[in-house]
Amino acid sequence: MSAEGLKRQIYLASASPRRKDILAEMGAKFTVITADVDENCDICDPCELTENLARLKGRAVLELLRREGRDAGAIIISADTVVAVDGEILGKPKDAEDARRMLTLMSGRAHEVVTGVGVTVDGITYTDHSVTKVVVDDIPASQIEKYIESGEPFDKAGAYGIQGSFSRWIKGIEGCYFGVVGLPTNCLSNLFFKVVGVYPDEL
Amino acid sequence: MSAEGLKRQIYLASASPRRKDILAEMGAKFTVITADVDENCDICDPCELTENLARLKGRAVLELLRREGRDAGAIIISADTVVAVDGEILGKPKDAEDARRMLTLMSGRAHEVVTGVGVTVDGITYTDHSVTKVVVDDIPASQIEKYIESGEPFDKAGAYGIQGSFSRWIKGIEGCYFGVVGLPTNCLSNLFFKVVGVYPDEL
Repeated sequence: MSAEGLKRQIYLASASPRRKDILAEMGAKFTVITADVDENCDICDPCELTENLARLKGRAVLELLRREGRDAGAIIISADTVVAVDGEILGKPKDAEDARRMLTLMSGRAHEVVTGVGVTVDGITYTDHSVTKVVVDDIPASQIEKYIESGEPFDKAGAYGIQGSFSRWIKGIEGCYFGVVGLPTNCLSNLFFKVVGVYPDEL
Repeated sequence: MSAEGLKRQIYLASASPRRKDILAEMGAKFTVITADVDENCDICDPCELTENLARLKGRAVLELLRREGRDAGAIIISADTVVAVDGEILGKPKDAEDARRMLTLMSGRAHEVVTGVGVTVDGITYTDHSVTKVVVDDIPASQIEKYIESGEPFDKAGAYGIQGSFSRWIKGIEGCYFGVVGLPTNCLSNLFFKVVGVYPDEL
C-alpha cells in the first residue's frame, strides 16, 4: 500500500479533558489514546523538559499502536505543560498543603507556563513549545483556601486552571492563552502543517 | 425594608452566550436580561466608547426593572466589546464582504480588543475597561473564506472569536484573554468587589 493510499488518523496522546476540548474546537477529528510514561527526568530547562516529555508521550503511544498493528498512517499529537516560578518547576500539587504553597507563591506576581507539543508522523516525532507569562493578582488567603476546597487545583500543573473560577485572579498574560490551558493552538497548528502538509481539521 | 434586608440579585445585561458562560464559570448566580440601546455614538476613543455603552446597557436594564418594580436590590453587570485597528473601530461585520475586509485587515499584524464593563448598584453605574493586544498570524485567503463560510464571524466584533477554530491564527495576546472573549473577569471582579463589597460568586 502506498503512503498516499493510507488513511491518516489523528491520535491525541493525552487524558486531559481540556486538551481534548481545544483540539475538538479546532475542528480536528481524532481518537484519545494514552500510554504510561515515566515523567521523572533531570532536565531543568522547562522548554527542553516539556518538549522531551511531549516526545516521550508520543513515542509511547506509537509503540502501543505498533504492538496493535494500528500505526500505519497514524499521526500522534502529544503535549506536556509545566509552570515555572523563579527557576522552580511546578507540576501537579501532591496534596492541599502543596497546592497552598504553590498558590501562595504565585499570588501577586508573574510566572511562566510552558507547553511542549509533539507531532509524530511516519515514525518521526517533531516538537515545539510555547511560553506564556501569566501575571496573577493578589489573592487573599481565604480565597486560596476556597479554591483548594473546590478541588480544582489537583489535576493541574501549578495548582490552578486559568479558565473557570480562578480566571478572576489573572491580571493578564503575554503569549498564548491556549498554551496555558494545555494545548497551544497556533504553535501546534503550524508544526502540524509543516510536517503533515495540511491543518489538523483538514484530515 | 432596610437595605441590609434586601435580597440582592445579579442581572447580566447581555445576550452574548460567551459572556453568560464566563460569568457562570466565575461561580455567580444571575439572570440574563436585555434591553434595547442605541449603539450609535460619536465617541472615537474605544475605552471611553465601550465604558459609555456598558453604562447605557446597564441603565436601560435598570429602567426596565424599575418599570416592572424589580429594581430593589438589583445589581446589573453590563459590557461592550470593540476591536480597534489603526484608530478604526470594528464592530460586528454587516455581511460576508465586511467580514472579509476585517479579517484581511487583521491578518499578520496586531490589533486591540477593548471591553468596557459596568456594575449598576443602588441606581448608580460604575464602569471600568480592559485593553488587550492581539497578534494575529498570517491567514491564507482560502482560510479566511473557510472561516466566513463557517458563519462564525457574524455575531462577533472584528469578525472573529478568539476561542474555537480561529484560535490557531492567534500568535499571542498581551492582557486579559477573557476581555477578548467579551467579559474581563479580573477587571469585573475587582470593580464588583469595590462597589458591592463581595465577589460575584458570594451573593
